[in-house]
Amino acid sequence: MAVTLSATLAANEDIDRRRRAGERVLHLAFGEAGLPVHPALRDKLAAASERNGYGPVAGTSGLRAAAAGYWTRRGLPTDPDLVVSGPGSKSLLYGLLLAIGGDIVLPMPSWVSYAAQADLVGARPILVPAPPGEGGVPDPDLVAEEVRRARAAGRTVSSLLVTLPDNPTGRLATPETVARLVDVARELDLTIISDEIYRDLVHDPALPYTSPADLAPERTLVTTGLSKSLALGGWRIGVARLPEGGHDLRARLLAVASEIWSAPAAPVQEAAAYAFGDPPELTERIASSRRLHGVVARAVHERFVAAGARVDAPQGGFYLYPDLSHLRLGGSAELTKILLEEHGIGVLPGHAFGDDPAAARVRVAVSLLYGDTAEERMAALASPDPLRLPWIAQNLDFLTTGLRELSLTRRGTAGALAATPSHG
Amino acid sequence: MAVTLSATLAANEDIDRRRRAGERVLHLAFGEAGLPVHPALRDKLAAASERNGYGPVAGTSGLRAAAAGYWTRRGLPTDPDLVVSGPGSKSLLYGLLLAIGGDIVLPMPSWVSYAAQADLVGARPILVPAPPGEGGVPDPDLVAEEVRRARAAGRTVSSLLVTLPDNPTGRLATPETVARLVDVARELDLTIISDEIYRDLVHDPALPYTSPADLAPERTLVTTGLSKSLALGGWRIGVARLPEGGHDLRARLLAVASEIWSAPAAPVQEAAAYAFGDPPELTERIASSRRLHGVVARAVHERFVAAGARVDAPQGGFYLYPDLSHLRLGGSAELTKILLEEHGIGVLPGHAFGDDPAAARVRVAVSLLYGDTAEERMAALASPDPLRLPWIAQNLDFLTTGLRELSLTRRGTAGALAATPSHG
Repeated sequence: MAVTLSATLAANEDIDRRRRAGERVLHLAFGEAGLPVHPALRDKLAAASERNGYGPVAGTSGLRAAAAGYWTRRGLPTDPDLVVSGPGSKSLLYGLLLAIGGDIVLPMPSWVSYAAQADLVGARPILVPAPPGEGGVPDPDLVAEEVRRARAAGRTVSSLLVTLPDNPTGRLATPETVARLVDVARELDLTIISDEIYRDLVHDPALPYTSPADLAPERTLVTTGLSKSLALGGWRIGVARLPEGGHDLRARLLAVASEIWSAPAAPVQEAAAYAFGDPPELTERIASSRRLHGVVARAVHERFVAAGARVDAPQGGFYLYPDLSHLRLGGSAELTKILLEEHGIGVLPGHAFGDDPAAARVRVAVSLLYGDTAEERMAALASPDPLRLPWIAQNLDFLTTGLRELSLTRRGTAGALAATPSHG
Repeated sequence: MAVTLSATLAANEDIDRRRRAGERVLHLAFGEAGLPVHPALRDKLAAASERNGYGPVAGTSGLRAAAAGYWTRRGLPTDPDLVVSGPGSKSLLYGLLLAIGGDIVLPMPSWVSYAAQADLVGARPILVPAPPGEGGVPDPDLVAEEVRRARAAGRTVSSLLVTLPDNPTGRLATPETVARLVDVARELDLTIISDEIYRDLVHDPALPYTSPADLAPERTLVTTGLSKSLALGGWRIGVARLPEGGHDLRARLLAVASEIWSAPAAPVQEAAAYAFGDPPELTERIASSRRLHGVVARAVHERFVAAGARVDAPQGGFYLYPDLSHLRLGGSAELTKILLEEHGIGVLPGHAFGDDPAAARVRVAVSLLYGDTAEERMAALASPDPLRLPWIAQNLDFLTTGLRELSLTRRGTAGALAATPSHG
């Protein structure tokens, strides 16, 4: 295995350092939901504070039953015995890579940790671009081609991964693409890992959502968590739904889990069991969050479009993935550096997501625009028109100015690279 | 890497199944502290329930400063920048194996997860017996020999591990042995990992305690957690103290941590920061726990001695490691099976700890004898004479009877193997 330092960590540390030094930096680099925890969840955590036993590695029966109910209500009837919890769906994804073995097909671009995890377990990811206009899903035709090539070269390819909806692109794969991909997975006998952590944050609930588990329950693993929909990233809780008949895989995953993390924190499991029950107060909170993410993501999208970026409209979560190659400023690292150092706009470079380093694509997370305090964030959640809240409006204006200057300065004036930063 | 099913998990599931079926089984197989969480920690967790951000991978600065203070007060001046927290010291040990790389020398016997983790990361453990009468520390002379042999065969051996005091033997390595081992580690240029999770549970505080970090701060990593001293196993919190100048190792460990578990649960970090400050109420709780563990472990030790076992007196934690080979009942698996099936005594076989399967050695954990309810456990903690509490006395009587029958039945009457279980 290989241990590589995370580009995300480094970028975020750089932004934090500048902010501490008093620079104004718009923080668009971090995939945190940026919202307060619901009081009902705080109460559940406090009430469960007497829980100090190790408990089952898979999670308590209450948590597993609640997660099974969560999926069943979303059209995926689920056996609680095939639910495994972990301290974040990230840990479960890592454990699954170890438990499944072999190389994995990933969409390009895709969340930074997939490839990094593969690297840690000694697997080699096969990066396959998404079909045009989509994200989070490797192009089915290319998958077939790439897997056959890799196998012909003697490699063991066991799985493919999709993110529905996607980080970094904010796009949701169409049911047609998912169906084609499932066919390919069947043909090639690949296990499908479907990361659905943003599922409840699809902005338009009328958008058709197909999980590979709907079509191929015998070979699809679904993971989710509460970090995004309920902003519980710091509580570290995720769940995996194993395929029908996946008892051997379960045993292997539990063997891994028991040697690395044991189980999620017991009081957090109790709160999560409540949350996965979809109680009305949390359903309502998720609906407000989804609306806020959508409104702000679309506003940010407009600003990138106005700056000439090629960028698909975000459909879920709180990300977008603009391409500013037309400015000819270099690849994703150069663009990221210029945005941060000259315009005070902190984003992540596309190459961190496995994308072509020569393409000037960056990932933009909008969720830290909602406010700097719990009060501002609550006001943003409650507002019928969050874009008019002064702190959000100011953030968006700062972005507009930065992007305008970026595009104006650059066209044909390469010397301006050394210009004074436009925002202190 | 290899994924193997845990013997501990299987044994504990077997015990639980029998108990659910109504059998009386004395549960001596699980390394849980068996005590309630202190109310002050519950309050801290509840007060921190608004913490939902991801936070730094290494842990909050408050937690790292508190852990640095914890070690500094124990004679190990510590830079908070060289402290890394994780969801249990188990996860940190795993991350360290990945971050350090290479093969590792382990004491034989040693905690089940060390070798299992090595297996998962593709390393090969080199098991080296402890010096006679000690535990948790590989014999320094044999280490030198084995490492030279492994290196001559082309293997990369990077580290050695000690457990002070030890699970499974309950023994604390002497300062002399630690010093000799440190010399060997220097000579062979090995990193030392010192698992000190039971440090605050050394029964006799006058017993001299030497950490390898006292002698070789430049090459020693220390890990600890709150699962044992404060019974917070289910909260999942541990900390690692990296060697002086260990900034590269820190970066590698954080890279691993950020891809597998991110950080411990944020509210738990707050409670842990309080606990690592050694506040008087928790110091007092740990002192009561230490006394209870010691009293019960010595009582259990007497009973095994009475049954003819060879067993060193426990010095820390809540374990002992009797050898019943004189009964000629087979190896550790056979003895474990007979104890459970015929005498209702659930223990773990020595071979799960890397010991010779032919030796009839088992690990006995005494911490689930303190009671079945929080009230009983609190009474045990508070009691000046816990052995006279009816439920503990009954448990010990059950053990006495079982061991007496075991030794009486067996001597020279091999046919008795098929006898009726003596305790339903």
